[in-house]
Amino acid sequence: MAAIAAASRWCRLVLVLSAVGLGAVGAPQPPNIVLMLMDDMGWGDLGVNGEPSRETPNLDRMAAEGLLFPSFYSASPLCSPSRAALLTGRLPIRTGFYTTNGHARNAYTPQDIVGGIPASERLLPKLLKEAGYATKIVGKWHLGHRPQFHPLKHGFDEWFGSPNCHFGPYDNKAKPNIPVYRDWEMVGRFYEEFPINLKTGEANLTQIYLQEALDFIKRKHSRQRPFFLYWAVDATHAPVYASKPFLGTSRRGRYGDAVRELDDSVGQILQLLRGLHLADSTFVFFTSDNGAALVSAPRQAGSNSPFLCGKQTTFEGGVREPAIAWWPGHVPAGQVSHQAGSLMDLFTTSLSLAGLKPPSDREIDGLDLLPVLLRGQLIDRPIFYYRGNELMAATVGQFKAHFWTWTNSWEEFQQGIDFCPGQNVSHVMTHTQEDHTLLPLLFHLGRDPGERFPLSFTSAEYQDALQWIAPAVQKHRSTLVPGQPQLNVCNAAVMNWAPPGCEKLGKCLTPPESVPEKCPWPH
Amino acid sequence: MAAIAAASRWCRLVLVLSAVGLGAVGAPQPPNIVLMLMDDMGWGDLGVNGEPSRETPNLDRMAAEGLLFPSFYSASPLCSPSRAALLTGRLPIRTGFYTTNGHARNAYTPQDIVGGIPASERLLPKLLKEAGYATKIVGKWHLGHRPQFHPLKHGFDEWFGSPNCHFGPYDNKAKPNIPVYRDWEMVGRFYEEFPINLKTGEANLTQIYLQEALDFIKRKHSRQRPFFLYWAVDATHAPVYASKPFLGTSRRGRYGDAVRELDDSVGQILQLLRGLHLADSTFVFFTSDNGAALVSAPRQAGSNSPFLCGKQTTFEGGVREPAIAWWPGHVPAGQVSHQAGSLMDLFTTSLSLAGLKPPSDREIDGLDLLPVLLRGQLIDRPIFYYRGNELMAATVGQFKAHFWTWTNSWEEFQQGIDFCPGQNVSHVMTHTQEDHTLLPLLFHLGRDPGERFPLSFTSAEYQDALQWIAPAVQKHRSTLVPGQPQLNVCNAAVMNWAPPGCEKLGKCLTPPESVPEKCPWPH
Repeated sequence: MAAIAAASRWCRLVLVLSAVGLGAVGAPQPPNIVLMLMDDMGWGDLGVNGEPSRETPNLDRMAAEGLLFPSFYSASPLCSPSRAALLTGRLPIRTGFYTTNGHARNAYTPQDIVGGIPASERLLPKLLKEAGYATKIVGKWHLGHRPQFHPLKHGFDEWFGSPNCHFGPYDNKAKPNIPVYRDWEMVGRFYEEFPINLKTGEANLTQIYLQEALDFIKRKHSRQRPFFLYWAVDATHAPVYASKPFLGTSRRGRYGDAVRELDDSVGQILQLLRGLHLADSTFVFFTSDNGAALVSAPRQAGSNSPFLCGKQTTFEGGVREPAIAWWPGHVPAGQVSHQAGSLMDLFTTSLSLAGLKPPSDREIDGLDLLPVLLRGQLIDRPIFYYRGNELMAATVGQFKAHFWTWTNSWEEFQQGIDFCPGQNVSHVMTHTQEDHTLLPLLFHLGRDPGERFPLSFTSAEYQDALQWIAPAVQKHRSTLVPGQPQLNVCNAAVMNWAPPGCEKLGKCLTPPESVPEKCPWPH
Repeated sequence: MAAIAAASRWCRLVLVLSAVGLGAVGAPQPPNIVLMLMDDMGWGDLGVNGEPSRETPNLDRMAAEGLLFPSFYSASPLCSPSRAALLTGRLPIRTGFYTTNGHARNAYTPQDIVGGIPASERLLPKLLKEAGYATKIVGKWHLGHRPQFHPLKHGFDEWFGSPNCHFGPYDNKAKPNIPVYRDWEMVGRFYEEFPINLKTGEANLTQIYLQEALDFIKRKHSRQRPFFLYWAVDATHAPVYASKPFLGTSRRGRYGDAVRELDDSVGQILQLLRGLHLADSTFVFFTSDNGAALVSAPRQAGSNSPFLCGKQTTFEGGVREPAIAWWPGHVPAGQVSHQAGSLMDLFTTSLSLAGLKPPSDREIDGLDLLPVLLRGQLIDRPIFYYRGNELMAATVGQFKAHFWTWTNSWEEFQQGIDFCPGQNVSHVMTHTQEDHTLLPLLFHLGRDPGERFPLSFTSAEYQDALQWIAPAVQKHRSTLVPGQPQLNVCNAAVMNWAPPGCEKLGKCLTPPESVPEKCPWPH
């Protein structure tokens, strides 16, 4: 049996490799890989997904030349866990990118987080680098900012960007401004060398990130090695920003200005690939880390329409992402795939493109999407939605089951913190944590993408759907081994006081006394 | 001044005519005109507008070959007034397609309505027929069903369809089933000769309406006269239906089956036009009569995403429509226009295509969209949203002002009649009629298409916007002369008991005694 299974796997690999034009000996090199990850951009922000102002001509063209996934999911409704999942192919509950300080609480990597990506995890850049890829991350890392978590220790050859969000400005006394790194060393800080004008919304960061991407592609394309670019830009995360030529140009206000600049940048990157005749040798994927942050709406947030709620929640608005694959000559143009996709699939798919198999010594949640991309196959698979340490919901086929519901607490909600402004689905959007594990709330996402009409518990459809969902969830639960939680402990002493390179800039700050404490994760 | 104005109008006419390839003497004949009007189809039901299941490949192609209007409005959140407005180019408040039985009440033309389109109105089919067009209506008329309101008395040469909605089945005692007409005479009734299976959703009506359209085009295209086809199909109005080959094929359930069949029919009509080499001589416009009827969601209603509420309301979900113009060789392909458009513009634009000017002896609300369609111009114009006898709201530029808010009454709402399921915008969606005329609620539709975040009354933006809106509304109000209301009186005696042709079929029923009464319009 084992031999048959191994042979079968080998045959599959050969089939996939031949399908993508890769052979064993004397084969053309595997394709370059560009993963474009937006920050808090919503499913509904793209013209091709129906945004009424239709201000993303380049992304719309990318979709017309490639494949659109309307049902593509993040691995978490929050940034850091989602990004950790992308780069490991594993649910945050496995890699430790969650907290046990509270039940079903979202946790991430602010400046005072002590944890980060464990050394035991095998990251995509490392695996690709070992396979000969030149690797670069541009933008937000978010997998921990202490020295051992540095992206260049996890397989990236180059980095230009920041370890945390561009919140601020801070006073550098109670809290330091976030550093911007070039490779190993800080080259400045947000609001200082890298200004963000909160009043006007002006910042040059997207232009800088764009130039970093273009420069990397130009430098690497003529080498014998393929390249991997992880372009993790953040202009659509509050405080949203755009450069001067884009400010005031959107019908949607400042958030739209940011989208327009990102769309323009995507267009420039694809145009460079075309110009360098790299289009058919470069796989590009565009997506976002979680749903639009409706808590910042309307001026600092995007659109999740027609989905329920936004970032921080496991309703569709928190986890359904814009997603486009582009690889002219390989991925057929103008396709739409109803494959249920996951950010974690980009791990496995990228490895597959490089002729690699995912690590076999651990559970990998990501699927290889190449059969979907290249041959239009549909693969049955469940999607699991966690919030912190809790499995909140799962999708099997078109049915989504909620085992727990929670938006945020009444206390927060009454303070005006609203993850679902303008929406109210009784007994579904709850401000107390509601346990539905015995009798899950079920929705048919085709008929009711907005999760407004739970199926009747007594209907035949409910019973049938549950018979599909229950075994998939049971299988998942029974084999799950949660990782050691990394996001439990905070300590002001670990903030970005004195990142490497600070001496050269005269920008080293003195950390306070070390006082580890439980991070407060309110939702 | 009058002479200059007349000369200016003449010059404009010549310019427009030459732009569309029409001249004065020996000119090619004006284009054929096909207006496709859906029933209760929502803005969000089209793939090109982001419906996640993306099941409208033919409409999406129509948009790719033509011009998409993301900001196109019906003239009423309800069927009959909207259809009267399309065919007259005039707001229902002017033509009498409203009621004064209650304030801000929606009224339409059920079987017991006494009124209908006044003889004094000049309808598009009549004007086109006078200009030499062969004219046909397929599907729902809805402008009154008593003999004097018959569509063939208002300019249509041919009719296949029904005067009212396909509600039923009725017992033919308390209420007769709705007749289906061919031209002057009834050829059967819904649920009898034209079955609709409420249990399975099966009905052949869309196929019949499609064949009527194809047949008309085939019969008329080789003549010297241009043709006008008004294709007013109704499969997406509850009870939704589809023919057997389409039932069960949608990811969206039965409503989606209906959409798929309509999309397929649109594809067949456009393909016939291409096949007959009529594409460049036929102007086609696709739109809907009002927003999706969310009161019937999720199984019998479409999607208005990302807009607020649905049919019956003057929020965007009630009045914003899918809209595509198609005229290969004239309307540039793949365009999106942010022109604020109105169903009433189809009246004026169709006349313009025929080389006609709209009647000058009355107020016409519809604009000529040819400069928009042919040359990408944008025309500043307000959009007014009425509900019954009340001006509820107005849009000027990107700002929408609500002067009155109301969804429906608390009594109805508590009975489960919900025009905005899953939505709740405090102080905006109201269950009592709220008068905001002194201090309108204002929304920025670009930033906030879902009307969730009213501008602060004290903001400079509010003050500025109001300075734009107030004069436009003032001008409208000061010149408005409401028509005699046609939808006040109901009478069971006027129902479809014995339509012409009933004798031949042996289907004449005996009307009850005539008892005129005020129609009850609950919302």
